[in-house]
Amino acid sequence: MRQKHDKTEIIQKGIQLFREKGFHNTGVDDILRACNIPSGSFYNFFKNKEGFAVQALELYNQKYLEYLDSVLDNQKLSPVKRLKKMFNQNVKEHVNNDCSLGCLLNSMTSEVAALNLKIAERAGQHYEKNAERIAMVLKEGQESGEIRKDFTPLELAFYLIDGFSGATVRMQAGKTDQPLKLFMKTAFSFLEAHRK
Amino acid sequence: MRQKHDKTEIIQKGIQLFREKGFHNTGVDDILRACNIPSGSFYNFFKNKEGFAVQALELYNQKYLEYLDSVLDNQKLSPVKRLKKMFNQNVKEHVNNDCSLGCLLNSMTSEVAALNLKIAERAGQHYEKNAERIAMVLKEGQESGEIRKDFTPLELAFYLIDGFSGATVRMQAGKTDQPLKLFMKTAFSFLEAHRK
Repeated sequence: MRQKHDKTEIIQKGIQLFREKGFHNTGVDDILRACNIPSGSFYNFFKNKEGFAVQALELYNQKYLEYLDSVLDNQKLSPVKRLKKMFNQNVKEHVNNDCSLGCLLNSMTSEVAALNLKIAERAGQHYEKNAERIAMVLKEGQESGEIRKDFTPLELAFYLIDGFSGATVRMQAGKTDQPLKLFMKTAFSFLEAHRK
Repeated sequence: MRQKHDKTEIIQKGIQLFREKGFHNTGVDDILRACNIPSGSFYNFFKNKEGFAVQALELYNQKYLEYLDSVLDNQKLSPVKRLKKMFNQNVKEHVNNDCSLGCLLNSMTSEVAALNLKIAERAGQHYEKNAERIAMVLKEGQESGEIRKDFTPLELAFYLIDGFSGATVRMQAGKTDQPLKLFMKTAFSFLEAHRK
């Protein structure tokens, strides 16, 4: 039975396939089949697979930024508590996925960055946006004395992003959340090092 | 003109292709063409592409371990100085590659870990071996008082590996060594935090 799909649903299915199977290993045909749509419906919305991937990164990161806002805007918790909650929820989600799925920004960058400058550049912009959002809370924490001040909020944000990203890849290799737990211990020890 | 290739040369060419183009995007045909050999020569040595990938990871990491030994065995430098030298040489190599090529362990894991348990498991074992080698120097540094003691040497080794791995992916997105420089600043501030 033919199902009606809108653009967002097609992109969401593509995100899932890219995360499970990789970018090159997911053909437009796989996306058509997963959505049960003819190729015309796909090319109506997207110029080609590269254009689709750029929009997939866009939607994926938009959802992630909404998630960041939902946790990091909560003024009832201290900045450090908000950041811990945010990462802990990320950890839970990875555990729910059996520690096997990575972040689309990382996997896409890692797979295609040497070949495709457009995708790499877009991924880079999304990392920047995430870091800027996280830096806002880090700045609050620095002002309240909770967080060390010898690095800028943006440096600390990238520190957190890179550490979590590396831990996520190693999590995928061993199918265990141990690297994520180590990240939580080391990263927050780093942020609060001045208090010891 | 037909060239004679030995097994190691074929694997080295494959490593290069996997790092430049990704795993799924590199076919056995690409490897044959790059080495100028017929398919028989390939299947003489390797059962299939998966078997080839496992051996590629093996050789890649064996070379990396030899590199670690060459820098980390140098008793003329303190443990922290040896670790700095080791990572600084990694940074230089990335800059020489225009910040576009990642680590094969990371890119392979990130691309295929959800699909291929055998490759994921092997990658996981290589991460362990690298961490154990790096932990030896961290232990020395803890004993001499240079390095903090509130995490085990192995935890600190994985902390360094994950942080550098995440920084390398973001380096590939932005084609800049800025993430690697941030890693150097934050990671060594972390290792030596007790001295402040």
